[in-house]
Amino acid sequence: MASAAQKTEIGQIQTTTYQTKRATVPALEELLYEPLQILDHGFIRLIDYMGNDDAIVQAARISYGAGTKKVSLDRALINYLMRHRHTSPFEMCEIKLHIKMPIFVARQWIRHRTANVNEYSARYSILSNEFYIPAEQYLASQSNTNNQGREGNLSKQEAARVLELLKQDAEQTYNHYREMLNEDEHGNKLDPERDGLTRELARMNLPTNFYTEMYWKIDLHNLLHFLALRTEQHAQWEIRAYADEMLNIVKQWVPLTYDAFIQYKLHGAPLSKKGMDVVRKLISGEPIDQKTSGMGTREWQELMASLELDESQ
Amino acid sequence: MASAAQKTEIGQIQTTTYQTKRATVPALEELLYEPLQILDHGFIRLIDYMGNDDAIVQAARISYGAGTKKVSLDRALINYLMRHRHTSPFEMCEIKLHIKMPIFVARQWIRHRTANVNEYSARYSILSNEFYIPAEQYLASQSNTNNQGREGNLSKQEAARVLELLKQDAEQTYNHYREMLNEDEHGNKLDPERDGLTRELARMNLPTNFYTEMYWKIDLHNLLHFLALRTEQHAQWEIRAYADEMLNIVKQWVPLTYDAFIQYKLHGAPLSKKGMDVVRKLISGEPIDQKTSGMGTREWQELMASLELDESQ
Amino acid sequence: MASAAQKTEIGQIQTTTYQTKRATVPALEELLYEPLQILDHGFIRLIDYMGNDDAIVQAARISYGAGTKKVSLDRALINYLMRHRHTSPFEMCEIKLHIKMPIFVARQWIRHRTANVNEYSARYSILSNEFYIPAEQYLASQSNTNNQGREGNLSKQEAARVLELLKQDAEQTYNHYREMLNEDEHGNKLDPERDGLTRELARMNLPTNFYTEMYWKIDLHNLLHFLALRTEQHAQWEIRAYADEMLNIVKQWVPLTYDAFIQYKLHGAPLSKKGMDVVRKLISGEPIDQKTSGMGTREWQELMASLELDESQ
Amino acid sequence: MASAAQKTEIGQIQTTTYQTKRATVPALEELLYEPLQILDHGFIRLIDYMGNDDAIVQAARISYGAGTKKVSLDRALINYLMRHRHTSPFEMCEIKLHIKMPIFVARQWIRHRTANVNEYSARYSILSNEFYIPAEQYLASQSNTNNQGREGNLSKQEAARVLELLKQDAEQTYNHYREMLNEDEHGNKLDPERDGLTRELARMNLPTNFYTEMYWKIDLHNLLHFLALRTEQHAQWEIRAYADEMLNIVKQWVPLTYDAFIQYKLHGAPLSKKGMDVVRKLISGEPIDQKTSGMGTREWQELMASLELDESQ
Repeated sequence: MASAAQKTEIGQIQTTTYQTKRATVPALEELLYEPLQILDHGFIRLIDYMGNDDAIVQAARISYGAGTKKVSLDRALINYLMRHRHTSPFEMCEIKLHIKMPIFVARQWIRHRTANVNEYSARYSILSNEFYIPAEQYLASQSNTNNQGREGNLSKQEAARVLELLKQDAEQTYNHYREMLNEDEHGNKLDPERDGLTRELARMNLPTNFYTEMYWKIDLHNLLHFLALRTEQHAQWEIRAYADEMLNIVKQWVPLTYDAFIQYKLHGAPLSKKGMDVVRKLISGEPIDQKTSGMGTREWQELMASLELDESQ
Repeated sequence: MASAAQKTEIGQIQTTTYQTKRATVPALEELLYEPLQILDHGFIRLIDYMGNDDAIVQAARISYGAGTKKVSLDRALINYLMRHRHTSPFEMCEIKLHIKMPIFVARQWIRHRTANVNEYSARYSILSNEFYIPAEQYLASQSNTNNQGREGNLSKQEAARVLELLKQDAEQTYNHYREMLNEDEHGNKLDPERDGLTRELARMNLPTNFYTEMYWKIDLHNLLHFLALRTEQHAQWEIRAYADEMLNIVKQWVPLTYDAFIQYKLHGAPLSKKGMDVVRKLISGEPIDQKTSGMGTREWQELMASLELDESQ
Repeated sequence: MASAAQKTEIGQIQTTTYQTKRATVPALEELLYEPLQILDHGFIRLIDYMGNDDAIVQAARISYGAGTKKVSLDRALINYLMRHRHTSPFEMCEIKLHIKMPIFVARQWIRHRTANVNEYSARYSILSNEFYIPAEQYLASQSNTNNQGREGNLSKQEAARVLELLKQDAEQTYNHYREMLNEDEHGNKLDPERDGLTRELARMNLPTNFYTEMYWKIDLHNLLHFLALRTEQHAQWEIRAYADEMLNIVKQWVPLTYDAFIQYKLHGAPLSKKGMDVVRKLISGEPIDQKTSGMGTREWQELMASLELDESQ
Repeated sequence: MASAAQKTEIGQIQTTTYQTKRATVPALEELLYEPLQILDHGFIRLIDYMGNDDAIVQAARISYGAGTKKVSLDRALINYLMRHRHTSPFEMCEIKLHIKMPIFVARQWIRHRTANVNEYSARYSILSNEFYIPAEQYLASQSNTNNQGREGNLSKQEAARVLELLKQDAEQTYNHYREMLNEDEHGNKLDPERDGLTRELARMNLPTNFYTEMYWKIDLHNLLHFLALRTEQHAQWEIRAYADEMLNIVKQWVPLTYDAFIQYKLHGAPLSKKGMDVVRKLISGEPIDQKTSGMGTREWQELMASLELDESQ
């Protein structure tokens, strides 16, 4: 998390207020600059935002004043835009976050290309001794059915072994990192008799559970796309922890858009052609099962689950 | 420009003020929402902005507080970033504009892909009877040396002929557009006896000097790239008129970045390998001319001009 | 369409064959360079392509040889990728087209930003006297229920009036364009006594039904996104004509991907949260209608249509 | 590098030839699929390419046949496009590579967003025991003048210590990775009595000098931008090793474009406004030094170096 000196810096900008004619969201003003803790040492900090629900309406209507006419009309328009994939008005809102996360999470994060990024440079600066160690309840074993997923928790004994290995290796590699650098916190040599290895090389000794930080800026449409992919159950739990917190920020920032997103994307279901055939038959009472549906087993199971029906239907 | 009703709408949002903890630029607050006239009926209106010079510094340093330490240090850092093409911190500022421009300008504009766009839809709404007619002093003849450019002004008589043709065709095509639509301003039929052609088809009768409008949002780095290309002498004069106004907004928004941009990009010169060879010889007094330089005639002329030397050097 | 000289050029490259070790699609080799006519004067020409279904599999598996193991496994993998929005392997195929289309179609087209574009420059060259006149059966009136759409055909008499106006204005504006330019086909002055207006200005007199041309290159994932939006019934008929032809090229290029796209995207249905509630109730026999569903009228109608049920359900 | 099984796979596709009418580059056909070794275990493999120098000319001219008229004209056009930043025709060529590189290199690589990427998934598969250990001559100490760079080599004794630490930690963390996974190469349990940790978690124990692999596809314009940044002296040596090899591929692929790139970008110099003032004074013999130039010390030194003049000028 943030150090004492950092907290002082944060406190200063939190208490300074300006006048503006720009669109403003009181709920986000409350959130500004505050580190919201994620995982053991990570956080999300809201640094800036542009626009609100009105700004989406304003852009969709190319209007000269504020976007809003009546909340019910605005809600209807935002629902319409979301439902018909008119995505460009949602690009008219922008958000900027300061995020601290393990490197392996940053590596997934950065795959979303339509965003602006400034990452802490370990070529330029020395990394802190902060690394991610999962809480015991998140130490899962490999799924047998899903090659990319987790399934079931490790036994207490296994979990202890894993935690021990992770900690030991993180501590040892960090100590060796500093030994190779031969530098203390202030950039002074630890051992004045010897040279230190350049930072851009020494850093490669650190595992990907070490924390990094970035400033990250993205428009609302692309943020929602990120959240659709990263809040779902197939996403790795660690990145979901960040995505869930961002979804909560979206809810406070643009409540009408949030509702539309939940309704048409996040809690909706993209049925396939065959899926629609199955649904039509189920409604009309025609016989249908996995075999005659032409669907694969997993696909059938997922459809039955989304319909809240017994798989053996 | 803006109608009376639009001016009322604009006035309303200009007089409403909010409190914010976000980075704020007083000079831009003054500009917000006001139409800055460009060409005969066009404008640029600043709708929103995110960040300032400090925000660039803040992102480059991944800092916890405001970006700034001392203005002189900030200036040095921004110059360094610009000079070494560290472009990502400049992406941390964002601007949103409402722009009214002729369709042929919009067609060049839209080629800059790294921006968010909402354009007025002539499928959905009826276009106004507003078209661009150049001022007489901008009616140039085709350049003989540059296939893409202008050169010299038309004679008064020729200019008059051109203006007459442009006006006549714009008026006639617009009248026919409305006749095909068979709709008045309020969407009522002009002639109740007959159907109107759908808007998405009728619009194709209008020439590209008719005005369109868009909300346009872009980050500072990509805006500077746009300005580098569109303020230069090879850009068509009409889009340069918009670019020049935006450059002026940048100057007020991020003065340190503006200075660095002028210094390292806009008023700098990207010398080629051969250009550097020529410069070295000119400094050391070795004989060099276009022939021995290996450069083409135009390239040599441009180099001599940038060095403020006689072409026949 | 293509002129005689252009056809000769096309014929030459169609008869020249090379050896390659790259992934090759025989069906597309047959198509290469041939203009496929769209609308009255437009076309799509396949200029180049990279990859095939195997290349998608190869990239998904980061394999060292060709992508394929067994067609049935490849099909299962491609279906899995499409179903779970693993879009990056589909970006590993690329296609390049030469397209001739009316300017108003080009303006919609260019809104898809993730593509590479070279458009014919009317600053540099003179436009041909080719403009789009819709066939009579496509002259529709404005929809009363959908502000963006068409509905019903114009009467014969109305259609004749519209066609007359469109032709007359296109011919007149083109004649005036050439008169302002004062240039013949070979760049010689028509009237040696007077200057001509520069091309970059004269072009603005031409309506948006005039044809332009572009080279356009896009990856398969983004092409499918384009096709999902532009083949649907809300898209303007003229751009759908191009999209339908491109969908047909996709079918020949990557047949497994085409099948997956049809199955999971094009002929699937993205049901909303409320839509899924309705479906569950219809299956279980619980009473449900538009009012109790919480859905809007149009949304309910669309759901009933997709379920092939009576709206008054 | 590639295993025996992988070499067999590679051999098979290298010996299979097809007929095509597409633009083909014989020099690249020779290169296809062959791993070009970089660093100790990395490689670049050319997987596919689209277009050549002719294709750039063809797109710039929107031509109906092949792009070429005469090589000298093509060269002049390509030089013109490069010099005037008409970048879009260079986007009409595309290249696809299979690259194996250390994770810390991949993290820099991925910052170039305008590319398509498929990376080996350590959520899905087990990483190999391959890590990067620098050759002794690349073990540099931190630069005192450039916070991001290297300077001078470590002593033999220091180098030996660093190599020992890097190897030891890589081996230990990999052994623990496999111990946590509790899986052998074939996915069988090492110890049948206990569960294994899920792959997506176990991977976080591995340092960033471990190798990863990706399929990477990019257009020529964006590749040149990558190369301009990553072949320069400020880039980390390890990524430069890859960039240099790719520059060599570009030279064989599009020789005219390569020449223009060297001439106008890579070996050119972007002089600033002040830099041009200095150059003008040096040519005219007016007195000028760092102080009176208004330039910073480093900037002045760099200018003098590029002019091949003594710094104390």
